[in-house]
Amino acid sequence: MDENSSFLEEACKLAINSVRNNGGPFGCVIVDSKTNEILASGNNIVTKSFDPTAHAEIVAIRNTCQKLKTHDLANCTLYTSCEPCSMCLSAIYWSRIKKVYYCFTKEDASSYDFDDSFIYDELKKNMEHRKVQFINIKIPDNNPFEEWKNKTDKILY
Amino acid sequence: MDENSSFLEEACKLAINSVRNNGGPFGCVIVDSKTNEILASGNNIVTKSFDPTAHAEIVAIRNTCQKLKTHDLANCTLYTSCEPCSMCLSAIYWSRIKKVYYCFTKEDASSYDFDDSFIYDELKKNMEHRKVQFINIKIPDNNPFEEWKNKTDKILY
Repeated sequence: MDENSSFLEEACKLAINSVRNNGGPFGCVIVDSKTNEILASGNNIVTKSFDPTAHAEIVAIRNTCQKLKTHDLANCTLYTSCEPCSMCLSAIYWSRIKKVYYCFTKEDASSYDFDDSFIYDELKKNMEHRKVQFINIKIPDNNPFEEWKNKTDKILY
Repeated sequence: MDENSSFLEEACKLAINSVRNNGGPFGCVIVDSKTNEILASGNNIVTKSFDPTAHAEIVAIRNTCQKLKTHDLANCTLYTSCEPCSMCLSAIYWSRIKKVYYCFTKEDASSYDFDDSFIYDELKKNMEHRKVQFINIKIPDNNPFEEWKNKTDKILY
């Protein structure tokens, strides 16, 4: 078994242990792309931790960032038991991770009643056709972007 | 000023305070849809907390869920200073929030160099055309979904 398969197997084992410990069936490992060292991992703890954002990939990204004290994981590779949902995929982009290995596909997940394609579909729609209702109200004062623009010592991200 | 505008103004004020305290220029308030009581709030603390997922909406969703001890915010309305990015929008779907009020648009944000449209564009692409490289490797054993299927006392979500 090559190293990539071995990290994926680790992610799947985390997912199985997650189920045994009342989490969701998803696991994720984040590896330093240069040294191939495991930095941190995560599993789905949505119901356990009362956090709808606590998918395996998000938990692993947060754990890795805490360990490295950075919000930038450009030098990391992510291994996940299952193809990421749109929230986790977006988080991967924000974290600047460049490479993702995955084991099970969205179709595999869907055959076990884990279906996130409806969110991908919603994201493609114009706002007025989405199931979540979006209402725009302009507030004349209080522009946070002007405050940002005028701040001289800001950390860009 | 009506109640919805007032909650949005509060979200914008949080965003301004966020900048003053070295966070990003985004704020969010989550309100009980029935009582119109503010449950919790959040602001962008990506660089401050070393967490690329710590956008205002995600922080507010996490804080509200912790307060209510649930991962389900179906009875809540979200007020955000700016139209959500794809990560936050997906998190809104996972949290089951049904209504979102926002003040500044994606175009407003973009004019201040906060541009998240590239992630929306990436999500629309097939995997092989994305900037993040995706590699699928099947692992013959270790199927977490089978573990889930066979678990009798699982909490569905």
